[in-house]
Amino acid sequence: MDATTRIENALEAAVRRAEVPGAPPQLAAALRYAVFPGGARIRPKLCLAVAQACGDDQPGIADAAAASIELLHCASLVHDDLPCFDNAATRRGKASVHKAFGASQAVLAGDALIVMAFESMALGTALMPQRLPGLIMTLGRASGMPFGITAGQGWESEETISVADYHRAKTGSLFAAATMAGAVAAGAAPADGWRLLGERIGEAYQVADDLHDLVSSAEETGKPAHQDQTNGRPSAVEDLGFEGAVHRLETLLKEAIGSIPPCPGANELRSVILAQSKRFVPKGLVLVAA
Amino acid sequence: MDATTRIENALEAAVRRAEVPGAPPQLAAALRYAVFPGGARIRPKLCLAVAQACGDDQPGIADAAAASIELLHCASLVHDDLPCFDNAATRRGKASVHKAFGASQAVLAGDALIVMAFESMALGTALMPQRLPGLIMTLGRASGMPFGITAGQGWESEETISVADYHRAKTGSLFAAATMAGAVAAGAAPADGWRLLGERIGEAYQVADDLHDLVSSAEETGKPAHQDQTNGRPSAVEDLGFEGAVHRLETLLKEAIGSIPPCPGANELRSVILAQSKRFVPKGLVLVAA
Repeated sequence: MDATTRIENALEAAVRRAEVPGAPPQLAAALRYAVFPGGARIRPKLCLAVAQACGDDQPGIADAAAASIELLHCASLVHDDLPCFDNAATRRGKASVHKAFGASQAVLAGDALIVMAFESMALGTALMPQRLPGLIMTLGRASGMPFGITAGQGWESEETISVADYHRAKTGSLFAAATMAGAVAAGAAPADGWRLLGERIGEAYQVADDLHDLVSSAEETGKPAHQDQTNGRPSAVEDLGFEGAVHRLETLLKEAIGSIPPCPGANELRSVILAQSKRFVPKGLVLVAA
Repeated sequence: MDATTRIENALEAAVRRAEVPGAPPQLAAALRYAVFPGGARIRPKLCLAVAQACGDDQPGIADAAAASIELLHCASLVHDDLPCFDNAATRRGKASVHKAFGASQAVLAGDALIVMAFESMALGTALMPQRLPGLIMTLGRASGMPFGITAGQGWESEETISVADYHRAKTGSLFAAATMAGAVAAGAAPADGWRLLGERIGEAYQVADDLHDLVSSAEETGKPAHQDQTNGRPSAVEDLGFEGAVHRLETLLKEAIGSIPPCPGANELRSVILAQSKRFVPKGLVLVAA
């Protein structure tokens, strides 16, 4: 089964558990709307790619880990789009959850998706519960305080912003969780390299996003263009200039590739990462990351 | 160590983990503000009382479970008070989190508290990880969709409301989680009675709250009075009348006591529940629950 099918099936199973008699139907609909159709699913794909590189001895656990990572990502998008944050009207080419369902359902949908991520992880490890603690800790660190995506979003409301802490928490943390969860799900020994791999890819993705924000139209990305400028966010392009940002992106991908710990499928993982990275680099840019 | 000290210590340890260099300071402050000083801590006390009735062989796990239950409760209060829900200006006798820190910090504080609940559970079971899966599932069922507190809050925004589903999810679910988590934390065999005990106490608490809402002043409860009427919520007093509601409260407490499964400390648990229930019954009412 290919990665996309595995990820969509695992997400479908998670969302369907909320769609039962006795559940509030509008909120159940908001959950489905927030998860499907997805974006690039880049984090769960990275999670599965690492699991496969480590042997993928328990595909059900890897699928659950990938789905949990994506559920946390979807939750953060739903909350980030709220009027009290970005007040974004569109997301993934359609109305944002709060525009389609109202702010209260959007708050609850985000909450329920966070819970669903942890619950899915416990369900997914039922046959091998000894892998659950590491996975829960990985999800928790990536999503909560002090260093997860919640912390990253929190920096946007602080009077004095720490740009490095902001990016590491807002984007890097969930990418790092994707690679670490992939390794833990497949029973690999913990290694700093997995965290570094995710952090570098996350930072590269952030730089690519800044470049996109500068060169793309809203039509292409499915969300309003020039949002970073509008919202006064720190941007790599602003800090380093266009060429500097492109160079930084290349360096990050090289460092990412270089940090892959020894594992049975290291070569294939390297290819997957290079192929994936081509998809998030703005059109017209050619990267030499190998 | 008494229950209050155990609970406050466990909550303090959880909140302090978010207060480190590199964390956004305002959000860290909002978390502490949301958790301390607490209300009656009735759910974590119930959790510990059940753990003690079951032998409390791993007090660290019971403490973590009690803290996680309370963190989920605090998260739901922070989000329920938001302008898009109750728009409550006060909570526990002080400004609500969104009034004190702004709506964006309140959304993030709720999110971070949910994550913290799951993470604390994993940390708390480090010495006996085989108890983690059951506890994660218990926390997840109580807080997410389809039947947890998020679902309960969701019912308030539905066009057609199912009153039974609403109360079971909004209040009953977390009480049921408190009793079940207490039992699981102490290694007790799963028994339907633990869930029933929590559900009945939760329902009793809801009826008591409806009675309170009718007879109390804002000064006494620390939140605005007559909120249910203002917000058009279903209320036991409205459905059953005052005397009917008092009778219902008595019946529920009898059923709660009657559902305690066989365990070493059943008699003491029974006393604790009766003593606790006296605290949440409006002054001037005398219950005969034994």
